Amino acid sequence: MNRKEATIFGIYPIQEAISSGVIIDKLYTQKGIASSKIDAIVKDLEAKDTSVSIVPIEKLNRLTRGNHQGIVAITSPIAFNSLEETIEKTIAEKETPLFLILDQISDVRNFGAILRTAECTGVDAVIIQKKGGAPVSGDTIKASAGAIFKIPVCKVDHIKDAIFYLQGSGINTIAATEKTDSSIYDLDLKKPLAIIMGSEGKGVSKSVLQLVDEKAALPLLGEINSLNVSVACGAFLYEVVRQQNL
Amino acid sequence: MNRKEATIFGIYPIQEAISSGVIIDKLYTQKGIASSKIDAIVKDLEAKDTSVSIVPIEKLNRLTRGNHQGIVAITSPIAFNSLEETIEKTIAEKETPLFLILDQISDVRNFGAILRTAECTGVDAVIIQKKGGAPVSGDTIKASAGAIFKIPVCKVDHIKDAIFYLQGSGINTIAATEKTDSSIYDLDLKKPLAIIMGSEGKGVSKSVLQLVDEKAALPLLGEINSLNVSVACGAFLYEVVRQQNL
Repeated sequence: MNRKEATIFGIYPIQEAISSGVIIDKLYTQKGIASSKIDAIVKDLEAKDTSVSIVPIEKLNRLTRGNHQGIVAITSPIAFNSLEETIEKTIAEKETPLFLILDQISDVRNFGAILRTAECTGVDAVIIQKKGGAPVSGDTIKASAGAIFKIPVCKVDHIKDAIFYLQGSGINTIAATEKTDSSIYDLDLKKPLAIIMGSEGKGVSKSVLQLVDEKAALPLLGEINSLNVSVACGAFLYEVVRQQNL
Repeated sequence: MNRKEATIFGIYPIQEAISSGVIIDKLYTQKGIASSKIDAIVKDLEAKDTSVSIVPIEKLNRLTRGNHQGIVAITSPIAFNSLEETIEKTIAEKETPLFLILDQISDVRNFGAILRTAECTGVDAVIIQKKGGAPVSGDTIKASAGAIFKIPVCKVDHIKDAIFYLQGSGINTIAATEKTDSSIYDLDLKKPLAIIMGSEGKGVSKSVLQLVDEKAALPLLGEINSLNVSVACGAFLYEVVRQQNL
């Protein structure tokens, strides 16, 4: 298994990579270019839910010094799992499944540290959004201490889709947010759960907060009132571990 | 207040900085140089417990392109607090003081995230060792989200000195380590405490582990068996918060 992300450029190499089963994480195509071959690649990858961005030629030139012909692909070092299959399989096997949803964590070191924590706290799968999040890069793998190869990661079009599906499957969704008076320590966490952590700058999106079953905060005893997201995620997940192992 | 670290070089500028009350975090002097003025600066700073290193001229040339005359100082953006005074003051004011000892955390982002967590969990002071730890740099300040200006930091020659002093003051010392069967969740944390977190690579030093009153681990439910140190620190400190606010 190739455990590094790679940059592939040019029409033929990208066609070849796709037909050999290489997983493309992100595809970039040149703005205004007219090519039926590029169109076919885009159509193929969009059907596989790959993130496709149309960008100025300068962006492609920054991604590679090679002759890119208007198309550059970044491969993924891991295969992503299907949300539905992963949830169904987990529910069938485990009495109290634990999912972790990341609402656009953009820093690779935070993303890696969270994957590492998830693996250590028995999280069954991590759910991320296709756009807006940190890539699965070499830095993510390093910061995850290899956890990314041990824990299923599901990519969804939008976090909301995952929340609806989880709720429909009887999973309690809890958003970590300061915008609530209820403390994580007042909640009963001995049940099927999905914990939602928000982005570094904005926290959990407003639209997501409206959907979740519960909101919970960590007590903040100082003046700063802001924790690093991977630290907050660790405190949440370890409270789940504590309660479920009482 | 100057809130960035700065590099000062040359005998006269460093003398001036010291006499103006600028806090020197680290002093570097050139190996083999003979200067009574440099000797006087070294003597003065050593009396103030500043870390002084004798280094080859190449190291000084890397620290500055200026005419350093064999001496370079890195200023500290914060003033460090006296261990003894800080402990005495905290004990006098608070029923259950909470101290955090960092045994050579070397990554500035981890150090910053830990300071941020400490500020949010009501830690009264953070104790670090003069040598072997991350510097108080611009990156530390950024990762700490400003927490470094809100929480007293004490620098000691060796972590052991701090542990002896804390134990002599009736503070329970608990090391976070995997080298124990006892879980943090089995401990009574409703008492005066000092939590000791170890370095990223090696954990808490063997010699420190022999001194502490208790050792405690976080449950590790996966295969990786290794958490990011700032995440582990957050889970420990939040368990203290939970128990003390029950």
